[in-house]
Amino acid sequence: MKRLAAAAAIALACSPALADEGMWTFDNFPSAAVKAKYGVSIDQKWLAKVQDGSARFGGGCSSSIVSPDGLVLTNHHCVRTCVQLNSTASANYIKDGFMPAKREDEKLCPGVSVEILKDITDVTARINAATAGAKDYIKARDAAIAAIEKDACKGRDDKYRCQVTTLYQGGQFKLYTYRKYTDVRLAFAPEEQIAFFGGDPDNFNFPRYNLDFGMVRLYEDGKPAKTPNHLKWSTENPKLGEPVFVSGNPGSTSRLLTVAELEGLRDISMPDTLIMLSEIRGVLEQFSAESPEHERIAKNLLFGVENSFKGNYGRFQTLLDPAMMASKRTAEADLKAKVKADAKLSAATGDAWGELEAVERARPTVEKPYIWLEARAGFRSDLFSYARSIVRGTAERDKPNSERLREFTDSRLPIVQKNLFDARPVYPDLEKVVLVYWLTKLRENLTADSEGTKLFLGKESPESLADKLLASKLADPAVRKALWQGGKAAVEKSDDPMIRFVLATDAASRAIRKTYEDKIDGPADRADEKIAKARFAVYGTATYPDATLSLRLSYGAVEGWNEKGKPVPAFTYFPGLFDRATGKFPFDLPARWLSAKDKLSTKTVFDFVTTNDIIGGNSGSPVLNAKGDVIGAAFDGNIESLGGDYWYDGSVNRTVVVTTAAITEALKKVYGQDRLVKELTGK
Amino acid sequence: MKRLAAAAAIALACSPALADEGMWTFDNFPSAAVKAKYGVSIDQKWLAKVQDGSARFGGGCSSSIVSPDGLVLTNHHCVRTCVQLNSTASANYIKDGFMPAKREDEKLCPGVSVEILKDITDVTARINAATAGAKDYIKARDAAIAAIEKDACKGRDDKYRCQVTTLYQGGQFKLYTYRKYTDVRLAFAPEEQIAFFGGDPDNFNFPRYNLDFGMVRLYEDGKPAKTPNHLKWSTENPKLGEPVFVSGNPGSTSRLLTVAELEGLRDISMPDTLIMLSEIRGVLEQFSAESPEHERIAKNLLFGVENSFKGNYGRFQTLLDPAMMASKRTAEADLKAKVKADAKLSAATGDAWGELEAVERARPTVEKPYIWLEARAGFRSDLFSYARSIVRGTAERDKPNSERLREFTDSRLPIVQKNLFDARPVYPDLEKVVLVYWLTKLRENLTADSEGTKLFLGKESPESLADKLLASKLADPAVRKALWQGGKAAVEKSDDPMIRFVLATDAASRAIRKTYEDKIDGPADRADEKIAKARFAVYGTATYPDATLSLRLSYGAVEGWNEKGKPVPAFTYFPGLFDRATGKFPFDLPARWLSAKDKLSTKTVFDFVTTNDIIGGNSGSPVLNAKGDVIGAAFDGNIESLGGDYWYDGSVNRTVVVTTAAITEALKKVYGQDRLVKELTGK
Repeated sequence: MKRLAAAAAIALACSPALADEGMWTFDNFPSAAVKAKYGVSIDQKWLAKVQDGSARFGGGCSSSIVSPDGLVLTNHHCVRTCVQLNSTASANYIKDGFMPAKREDEKLCPGVSVEILKDITDVTARINAATAGAKDYIKARDAAIAAIEKDACKGRDDKYRCQVTTLYQGGQFKLYTYRKYTDVRLAFAPEEQIAFFGGDPDNFNFPRYNLDFGMVRLYEDGKPAKTPNHLKWSTENPKLGEPVFVSGNPGSTSRLLTVAELEGLRDISMPDTLIMLSEIRGVLEQFSAESPEHERIAKNLLFGVENSFKGNYGRFQTLLDPAMMASKRTAEADLKAKVKADAKLSAATGDAWGELEAVERARPTVEKPYIWLEARAGFRSDLFSYARSIVRGTAERDKPNSERLREFTDSRLPIVQKNLFDARPVYPDLEKVVLVYWLTKLRENLTADSEGTKLFLGKESPESLADKLLASKLADPAVRKALWQGGKAAVEKSDDPMIRFVLATDAASRAIRKTYEDKIDGPADRADEKIAKARFAVYGTATYPDATLSLRLSYGAVEGWNEKGKPVPAFTYFPGLFDRATGKFPFDLPARWLSAKDKLSTKTVFDFVTTNDIIGGNSGSPVLNAKGDVIGAAFDGNIESLGGDYWYDGSVNRTVVVTTAAITEALKKVYGQDRLVKELTGK
Repeated sequence: MKRLAAAAAIALACSPALADEGMWTFDNFPSAAVKAKYGVSIDQKWLAKVQDGSARFGGGCSSSIVSPDGLVLTNHHCVRTCVQLNSTASANYIKDGFMPAKREDEKLCPGVSVEILKDITDVTARINAATAGAKDYIKARDAAIAAIEKDACKGRDDKYRCQVTTLYQGGQFKLYTYRKYTDVRLAFAPEEQIAFFGGDPDNFNFPRYNLDFGMVRLYEDGKPAKTPNHLKWSTENPKLGEPVFVSGNPGSTSRLLTVAELEGLRDISMPDTLIMLSEIRGVLEQFSAESPEHERIAKNLLFGVENSFKGNYGRFQTLLDPAMMASKRTAEADLKAKVKADAKLSAATGDAWGELEAVERARPTVEKPYIWLEARAGFRSDLFSYARSIVRGTAERDKPNSERLREFTDSRLPIVQKNLFDARPVYPDLEKVVLVYWLTKLRENLTADSEGTKLFLGKESPESLADKLLASKLADPAVRKALWQGGKAAVEKSDDPMIRFVLATDAASRAIRKTYEDKIDGPADRADEKIAKARFAVYGTATYPDATLSLRLSYGAVEGWNEKGKPVPAFTYFPGLFDRATGKFPFDLPARWLSAKDKLSTKTVFDFVTTNDIIGGNSGSPVLNAKGDVIGAAFDGNIESLGGDYWYDGSVNRTVVVTTAAITEALKKVYGQDRLVKELTGK
C-alpha cells in the first residue's frame, strides 16, 4: 500500500509523463519497468558488461570501449581540444582531420584521462555521521569526502580514482571507484566540417547530418591497453521503435530544485550568463574573422561558447515556460503536504523551502563579486589558470587534507599536477583577448569604485594590465614544474608577473568564495539536503537522482517527434547531406566527401533520434541495442531537449545519435581506414 | 468631491512617491503643486519663454538656444555622429575636439534637423471620428494622422514640421507644430575624453566628471539664424536644495503598461535585446582593437550599443524588482475596480486587459521574424538603410498619402529625402561587420530551415552575401539622388546589388510587418487605447502622459541620494577629476586638461544631480533655475534612474547635469574660446 501510494504521488508530482524518463544509476536501474514497456530483460550481466565498456572523459564526456586494444569511440567535439592542441599553423587537424596511417603515429592528448567505473559503495552513513551537528556544513562534508576518497585509493592512485558522488542532493553519498588511464592518444578524427556540418546554426537541431565521432586509444606502459571487456561494434541500421539504451555521464540536471531556486536561476544567474556568453562570443567571432590563424586558435573556445550559449538559451526558455513552473509548483506542494502530514519528517525538514527563498534574496549582493573575482577569474586564460593552480595548490597541499579547498584534496592532486606538467600550446593573442574581457567585465560588473576593481586593476587599464601579465613564462611546462616542485617558498620568490598578480589578489578571491559559501552555497546545500532527505523518505529510490557527471543508464526507443504540428522523421541518410550542402561555411563539405559522394550507400542511416533522457556530459555515450551492442554515439539533443535540465517532456525531448553504421561506411569509403574497420568489426 | 477622489486614487495607484514625479506637457504643467512645494511661480510667460528656448534634435536629443545668433547647447554625445562624420583618418575631431577659430569654419552636420515647438492643438476628436468602428485600427489612425499633418504644414514644410503626438496612449492626440532648421553646423566640441571621461564604466554612475557638452549653430539662408528669444546663460553654481526645471524631449517611457505587457517585456523582448546588444558589443570591441582607424570608425556605433546595453540592463533589473511589479498590480487592480463600478465605462473598456494577455501569448511566434526581417533588418548598415529608403520610398510615394507606410507620409518625406541627399562617409569595413552580424543572427533566430533564411541568404553564407552587397554604389549621394528622383522605374532597372537585394526581399519584410501589426501592434494599441480612455475618464489630466519624444517639463531640486546606506553628494568639482584620472583609458585626460589643471577654479561645480524625472531623449536638455536661466545641460541619469521607464522612485532616481559654470570655465581656461564666451555671456 505504502509503495503504491508513493508511486501515485510521483506520477502526480512529475507530470506530464514518466515515459522513458530518468538517468538511472547502474545499481538502481528500473529493469521491471523496461521489461513491461519494451519486453527487454536488462539483467545484472547486461549491466555489468555495459558498465565495463563505458568510459568517462576527464573533461566531461562519455565514450565506449570498442576494441580489445583500448580503442575508444567518442564524439569529435569531445576530442576537439586534443585535435587542436596537436595542430600547428602548418598541420591543421581540425580542418583536415587526423588520420594516422599506423598506431605508432597516434598522438598524446594533453591533460586527458579516461576512467572506467569499477565499483559503487554506499558511504551515506559515514558522511551523515561526520556532518551531524556540524557548524560549517560544507567544510565538515568536504572533509569527510576527502578522507573517504583518500583512504579508498591509498597506494593505487596512479591507476585508480576514488570519488564520492553526491546523489539525490545529499540524500545518498556513494563512493565510485574508477580504473584510470592517463596516457590517452588520438587515434582518428574526421574533418571538423563533416563532424560539425551545419555548425552553430544546426547545433541542437534535427534533421542533422553530422559524423560527430572521434577515436582515442588508451595506453599503458607505452603500449595499447588491453581491454577484453569491450563492447561489440554493430554495423546494422537502427529500426524505428527499436528499444535503445544510453550509457554515459550526464553532467548535471536541476530537476529537484525548488521553485525559489528555479526563479533565482531565471531572474539572476541565467540572464547574466547569457549576456556574458553573448559578448565574448562576439569578441571571438571578430577575432576569428581577423585571420585564418586567429580562427584556428580561437575555434575551440568559440565552439564551447556558442554551444554553451545555445544550451543556456534553451534552458532559459524552459525556465520561462509557465507549464514547467506550474508542474514544479504542484510537485513542491505535494511534497510539502506529505512532509507536513508526518510530524517527525516535518520536524527534521523545518522550513527548508523558506531557507532557500532567503538564499535567493541574498544572492544578488554576493553573486557578481563571487563570479568575477573567483568563479570566472581569468576567464579561460591558460596562464592565469596555471598561476592560480600553482599559487593555491602549493599553499593548500601543506595543509591537512580535510582543511583544503576541495579541488586540492589528495584525491584531486594527481589531476592538478597532470594539468600543470603536460605540455600544450598557449596562444598569446587569445590570452590577451580573454584577459582583457575578464578585467573589463570585472570592472563593469563591480563598478570602477569597488574595492575589487581597485585591487585587481589598480591604476592599469584592462589592456595595459593584460600586456604586463603576458610577460609570464608559465607557458613553459618546465617553469610550471619547477614552481610546483619548489613549493610555496619558490612561488613566493617568483618574479613571474602572473604568479605575482595571483599572489596579490588571491586573498580577496578566497574571501569572496568564503562569503559565497557561507551565505549562498552552505545554506542552500543544507536546505537542499533536508528537502532531499524528506523527498527520499516519501518517494525512496522509485525516482532517479539528478545528474552528477557519473555513470547513468537511460532507456528509450528510436522515434521522431511532432514539431508544432509537423512530423520530424527519426532518420537521416547520406543523400540528405549532399542536398543540404551549399558549398559555403558552415554548410560546406570536405573535398574527400565530395569525391566519395557516389560511393556511399544511400540506405545507411546517418543520424537518428531516440526518446532517451540525456543531457550535456552524455556526449559520446554508447547508444546500445537490446543485446548491448553499440549502434551509435549520442552527440546532441534537439532544441526541446535543453529543457531537460529542469524536466523531461517525452513528447518532444530527443537524443541525437550518429550511427556506427555510418561511421563504418565513412571509414571504408571516404577515409580508406581498413585497419580501423578491421579492428572494430573483425572484418 | 470627484476631483479629490481621483487624486486619492492616484496616490494609491502610483505609490511609492509622487514627489517630483512627471514629465509634464507645457499645456498641462502642475504649477500649483510646484508653487506649494518649492514656492516658485511658473506662469504662462515663464512657460512660453522656456518653450521658445528649447529645441529638439531630429535624432532624439534636446538642447537650449543660448545666443541671439542661433547658438545651441546640447551634449557631446548628441553631436558625436556629426563630429565623427566630419572627421577623417588625419583629422580626428572625436579625439582632439573641434574648435573652429571663427564662425566661418563651422561644419555642416549631415542629416541633422533642429526643431522648436511653436504650437499645440488638440486633434483628439478628429482622430476618434476617423477611427470609430474602423476594421483596421492602425491603418485608419495612421491615415487620419497623415492627413492632419499634411494639411497643417501645407505650403510651409520647408520651414515647419507638423507632427501628431499621441498622448496617454491614445487618450489624447495633439498636433505639434515645430519651426524647423535643416542647416545645422557644428560650432564646438571638446575632446571625447573630457566629454565622456570614465567611458562606459562611469556611464550612468555618479560622482561623475564629464564635460558632456557640444555646440551647434542654426543657419538660415547660409547665415547664422536670428534667435532673439534665446535662454539666458548663467555662470552661477547650483545650490543644494535649489528648485530646478528640465525642459526637453524624453523619448519614451512605459509607465502605463499593464502587468501582462511588463511581463512580456521582462520575459521575451528584454532578454533578447540584451543578448543581441551584448554580442554586437563584443564584435565591435574586437573590431576596434584591431587598429586605430577601426576604433575611430566604430566608436559612434559602439558607444550607442554600450549605452543602450547599460540602459536596458538597468530597465531589466527594474522589471525583475518585485516591489515595482507589486505597485503595478495594485494600480491595475485599482483601475479595474473603478472601471467595473461604472457600467458605461465597463462596457466601453470590455476585457482590454485580457486582450493584452492574449497579445503577449501570441508574441513569441511573431516577434523574431518581425525583428530580424523587418525591424532590425540591415542592423545599422547605411547601405542597406539607403536601399530600403529608396526602394520603399519610391514605391510608397506613388500611393495616396493615407495608404502609405507611416514613415513615408508627406509630412515625413522631407526627412527621408534629406537623409538620402546629405553626403556622409560610409565605412566598408564596418558595413561588412554589421551586415554579417545581421545575416548570421537572422539565420540563428529563424533557423537555417526557415523560409526567411532561405529567401535572404539563399545558398550564400553571411560573409559571401555581405561581400556581394558591398559592391553597392549607394555610398555616393549622387547615385542615391538619381534613383530617388528616377522613381520606381529607375529603381526597378537598377543593377546595384543592394537595391536588387532589397527588391528581392522587401515583400517578405512587409508581409511580416503586416502580420506583426495585425497580431501584435494593432490589438495592443486598440486595447491600450481602451484602457487609456478608461484611465483618462477616472483620473483625467491630474496625471502626466508617457514620454513620446515631445517637449516636456519636469521639476525637482538639487539633491544627492542615499546609495545602500552611503550618502552620495550632489556636486563634483574639478580637483576630483584629476584625482580620478589614472592616465589609462577610459580614465585618461586630454593634454590640454593636464596643462590647465592649476588654472581651473576649485570652487566651480563640475557635475551635479537633481531629483528631476527625465529619461533618454532628455540628453542635452536645458536645466533651468527658478528664473528660467540655463544653469546646465542634463546628460545622464544615475543607475537607479533607469527604472524610470516603468516608475519613478524619488528616493534614488537622479538626473545628472554638467554646469554652464564649468563649461564657461573650460571655454576660458582650457580652450581659450573668448569668442564663444562673449557670445554666451555678453562678457
